[in-house]
Amino acid sequence: MRCLLFYDITNDRIRAKIADACLDYGLDRVQYSVFTGRLSRNLQEELFLKVTALLGDQAGSIVLLPICQKDWQARAEKGEMPAPFLRTG
Amino acid sequence: MRCLLFYDITNDRIRAKIADACLDYGLDRVQYSVFTGRLSRNLQEELFLKVTALLGDQAGSIVLLPICQKDWQARAEKGEMPAPFLRTG
Repeated sequence: MRCLLFYDITNDRIRAKIADACLDYGLDRVQYSVFTGRLSRNLQEELFLKVTALLGDQAGSIVLLPICQKDWQARAEKGEMPAPFLRTG
Repeated sequence: MRCLLFYDITNDRIRAKIADACLDYGLDRVQYSVFTGRLSRNLQEELFLKVTALLGDQAGSIVLLPICQKDWQARAEKGEMPAPFLRTG
């Protein structure tokens, strides 16, 4: 089942580790801090446990949301993710 | 119907205007660049047109996704949005 995982995390090192975990689970990066892909419910739970453990008690927010196919197909999108080295904020 | 709107935009001024538009349409900020709320399909389309017009040809990505109640209720969340003035990235 498709899921969307997004986060807002202050600590650069933790943010990078969480991005790596999402990529390790086969998710695609759709924005700098937003990933999506198809994972079984079990793997979604496993990934969520992993990324929340990485966050620990540091400041930040992580959300993992299942997305049904109908909703995903109805999304509206514009533009491309800015190149990381062009980001100013 | 509930929707999720998220963006990754380089230009600070445009990013702030898009956040204001989301708040004007009654969405709640769940992360620094992620908003959610209930809007009719027509208002979702209107908001998407507005925010893509604000982005214009500047670098960035905006996605608006409808979210069914079942998926929204199945989300997993941890933590709080960091205070804006504590963000380092």
